[in-house]
Amino acid sequence: MNGTLYGVGLGPGDPELMTLKAHRLISGAQVIAYPALAGAKSCARAIAADVIPAEAREIVMDVPMTVERGPAQAAYDVAAAEIADVLETGTDVICLCEGDPFFYGSFMYLFARLSQRFQVEVIPGVTSITTCAARAGLPLAARNERLTVLPGPLPRDELTARIKGAESVAIMKVGRHLAKIRDVIAELGYTEKAVYVERASLPEEVVLPLSEAPDKAPYFSMILLTKGADPWL
Amino acid sequence: MNGTLYGVGLGPGDPELMTLKAHRLISGAQVIAYPALAGAKSCARAIAADVIPAEAREIVMDVPMTVERGPAQAAYDVAAAEIADVLETGTDVICLCEGDPFFYGSFMYLFARLSQRFQVEVIPGVTSITTCAARAGLPLAARNERLTVLPGPLPRDELTARIKGAESVAIMKVGRHLAKIRDVIAELGYTEKAVYVERASLPEEVVLPLSEAPDKAPYFSMILLTKGADPWL
Repeated sequence: MNGTLYGVGLGPGDPELMTLKAHRLISGAQVIAYPALAGAKSCARAIAADVIPAEAREIVMDVPMTVERGPAQAAYDVAAAEIADVLETGTDVICLCEGDPFFYGSFMYLFARLSQRFQVEVIPGVTSITTCAARAGLPLAARNERLTVLPGPLPRDELTARIKGAESVAIMKVGRHLAKIRDVIAELGYTEKAVYVERASLPEEVVLPLSEAPDKAPYFSMILLTKGADPWL
Repeated sequence: MNGTLYGVGLGPGDPELMTLKAHRLISGAQVIAYPALAGAKSCARAIAADVIPAEAREIVMDVPMTVERGPAQAAYDVAAAEIADVLETGTDVICLCEGDPFFYGSFMYLFARLSQRFQVEVIPGVTSITTCAARAGLPLAARNERLTVLPGPLPRDELTARIKGAESVAIMKVGRHLAKIRDVIAELGYTEKAVYVERASLPEEVVLPLSEAPDKAPYFSMILLTKGADPWL
């Protein structure tokens, strides 16, 4: 019988925000896999470091960061083939995923390649958006409010239109798009309702009003904007 | 010194989807608090039942389910006063929250009442939307895709407009709004892209194509709709 591929969400960065199920699966793993972008240290592995058994085999998916999708997809082809070889011996593979595997996670590329041939189970994880809201003391959505999640790289016009028509907004992957996003929010008159959060739940976390955000933002930063209802009502 | 109020996300229902931090805080609790809607059994308490110390004091927030907000808000006033009395003795209070405290969670009402006077820490939890996506095998969002979260009770016209303009959509709190939502999605021609999920992560979970959804949906049900990109690309 073939092994099962587990796509395990690890949460936003604080190892204590891992679920009990993620902890159990990783603790008992014989083979783990994780992405490492462009040769950098794997953030996913760092979150799980204290839980990974010393004797576990580690499959590193070395994913190049290029604008064209071809090289990254070729890397997932290679990783999928290596993981398939393990699954065919009847051994499970635990794939480590920052945050949640299906919420802007690269696990979907493995899932697309392997879920027809093998049993795949996805273990959800705490996402960065609710972590940022928790750390900023900012309820995201209540009752019949709508929440819109927007990636920062979207074009200026689309960001403007989407933010205008929304109630609560979470803008992910701020990084080098900070200046553009800050302009859009200022033009809409929402600067005072916006919060900037960087590396939520990690020791180096930053939480600031958007007006006081630094000039340079890392990839793992977010802007939350709530126009929502009075929480007393 | 006053105690701290912890708003602890418990995840979607499977107790193993609780975070390690939630588990640690609840295991060590002297006083816990949780909502019970309209005299029903508390779903939050049920998730944490095996972790709550036998000797812990339990503050039940009995929240009436009425259309007017007044009675519910009066219940939160009462609960906040009772919790404040405990915090003033220097004892921490662990408030149990299904899912994530700030994602359609009632903890925001306690937060509004107590965060000016006391230290409040919010512990994020796994939300129902990523759990439903995991269980349905449906990646929610990748790369620069947008995700829109809509509550089912929204008026038909607004649902139509919001779904039309969106990429991935999660429609929460389906319940008695199922027929309306199904009509809207059918009129837009998206029925084949939609999945119905009920009580995700619990033993009684249901995952079906929307076209095969039952006629009656519980409050804890969701419809996911993805028009997103090819995961191979």
